Amino acid sequence: MTQTETDQQYMRIALDEARQAYDADEVPIGAVVVSARGRVIGRGHNLTEALSDVSAHAEMQALTAAAATLGGKYLSGCTLYVTVEPCLMCAGAIGWSQLSRIVYGASDPKRGYRSFLPSCTPFHPRATVTPGVLEEECAALMQSFFKSKR
Amino acid sequence: MTQTETDQQYMRIALDEARQAYDADEVPIGAVVVSARGRVIGRGHNLTEALSDVSAHAEMQALTAAAATLGGKYLSGCTLYVTVEPCLMCAGAIGWSQLSRIVYGASDPKRGYRSFLPSCTPFHPRATVTPGVLEEECAALMQSFFKSKR
Repeated sequence: MTQTETDQQYMRIALDEARQAYDADEVPIGAVVVSARGRVIGRGHNLTEALSDVSAHAEMQALTAAAATLGGKYLSGCTLYVTVEPCLMCAGAIGWSQLSRIVYGASDPKRGYRSFLPSCTPFHPRATVTPGVLEEECAALMQSFFKSKR
Repeated sequence: MTQTETDQQYMRIALDEARQAYDADEVPIGAVVVSARGRVIGRGHNLTEALSDVSAHAEMQALTAAAATLGGKYLSGCTLYVTVEPCLMCAGAIGWSQLSRIVYGASDPKRGYRSFLPSCTPFHPRATVTPGVLEEECAALMQSFFKSKR
């Protein structure tokens, strides 16, 4: 399997999480943390409404779950797949977690970390970022959700 | 009571939280959320070691506690007191929470949000920031902690 195919495979799991959020009337974003050996060690979706907690983003759920699985707080060597570009809060959390790779689907020009940090990285200095994986599917889910709210 | 005296009073509660962290061998940072009417509605200290969770910063604990107290996720009208300048993750969370005022003690030139965001705010556009309240006490606690670790 090529890297692109592998990335799409894990992004589909993140999309499954995002659909669970959608069905629960939460902003449809999902995230998955995968270990260096390819094992899913954490997954989650947006729970801000259910928990009445602005910090309960998909990435935060997945990072916390992954740390609990590993029994340690650092996720060096692991990859995060998330359906939408992380916000500033999640980008900061990803940095603290020392994740090695961040893969996301749709960009978020308004709330995404990149618009706040055009010239520096909030992640581990050696972490790599791959945007645009299954971008259209990830974006379509968000568009459908917000359209239904208008 | 002047605003400065009021700020120092609440910062002392945040410092009490920070000392609890220190005594538990956690990075000594404490935070308190105060309602518009002056009631402490959330408090917390760093629990990253205890919870083995990089996101368990003092501010995150205090914001979550305050939202639980209010029974709603937004903290408009409330003030956050925190002993050290928030990091990028916490600054992002503070923004999502719509807190109206952020008061902090010691600056954190290395990890604080200001070094990442010199020209834009991660907070609500109308939120105000007051740095330097009981700065020396807040900084001394951090210095003492990290000195003891060397």
